[in-house]
Amino acid sequence: MPPSKLYIKTKALERLLKEEDYYKKELQDQQKLVNTLKDDKSVDPYELKKHIEVLQDTERLFPSLYQKIDEFKVDLENYLKEFSKDSGVSSVQNESSESAPNTNTEAPTANGHGSLSPIDKVEIETLQPLIDELLQKATLAVKNFNSLH
Amino acid sequence: MPPSKLYIKTKALERLLKEEDYYKKELQDQQKLVNTLKDDKSVDPYELKKHIEVLQDTERLFPSLYQKIDEFKVDLENYLKEFSKDSGVSSVQNESSESAPNTNTEAPTANGHGSLSPIDKVEIETLQPLIDELLQKATLAVKNFNSLH
Repeated sequence: MPPSKLYIKTKALERLLKEEDYYKKELQDQQKLVNTLKDDKSVDPYELKKHIEVLQDTERLFPSLYQKIDEFKVDLENYLKEFSKDSGVSSVQNESSESAPNTNTEAPTANGHGSLSPIDKVEIETLQPLIDELLQKATLAVKNFNSLH
Repeated sequence: MPPSKLYIKTKALERLLKEEDYYKKELQDQQKLVNTLKDDKSVDPYELKKHIEVLQDTERLFPSLYQKIDEFKVDLENYLKEFSKDSGVSSVQNESSESAPNTNTEAPTANGHGSLSPIDKVEIETLQPLIDELLQKATLAVKNFNSLH
């Protein structure tokens, strides 16, 4: 069986946020090295230049990374909204949802996701803590990046 | 005491090769996901498109990465050549090379590294296995990349 849409969307966002961690660490290490080299008068200008280029290569990764994080976050949020409409289960808060009534009888939204099966309800409850964490982290990451650029 | 030039050059190449490992793994994972999505007829074209864009973002990292790996490799090799000239110690082969003659008598290169102190000799012997491994890996990586592009 192929992985579910929800699983793919969640893991995609998780992966981008792991990339962000990795790139940020890289940037930090390289910035530190460049600072050390700048302070050392015996360092070749050529060598310093090359290390600054490595730093710039890393810096260049961020705009498209944050754009992707934002897009994948919005896509996951939209999918969860649909789910909560289809099932009556709140997708943002955790719930012992046995008593949650299914009050929503709207038609599916236009982007082609149909009603979700009971399997998805179990899945969303399992993934919910991870999803909450990822959405929060993604929102903060994009906000921080936009406020600096 | 600031880190030595040799240490910085070695660690810089090591770091780029670790980045290469990370990016290659990312590329592989993302390619696999894109293939899975392509095979699944129920996947939104929008979602597939977004995942192909993530793949392309990763692919775009490689040309400048391999260029940097090549530059840092050549810089480290040149530095080692100078060291072997200054000290009479073979820098490319391991130290069981007592019988290996030092045949390199070329003039120093133009990039301004002076004679190395006895401390550097100890350091180079410590770093030699790592350096050999990195130079070999870098040579292979650049060669593979160039043969494909």
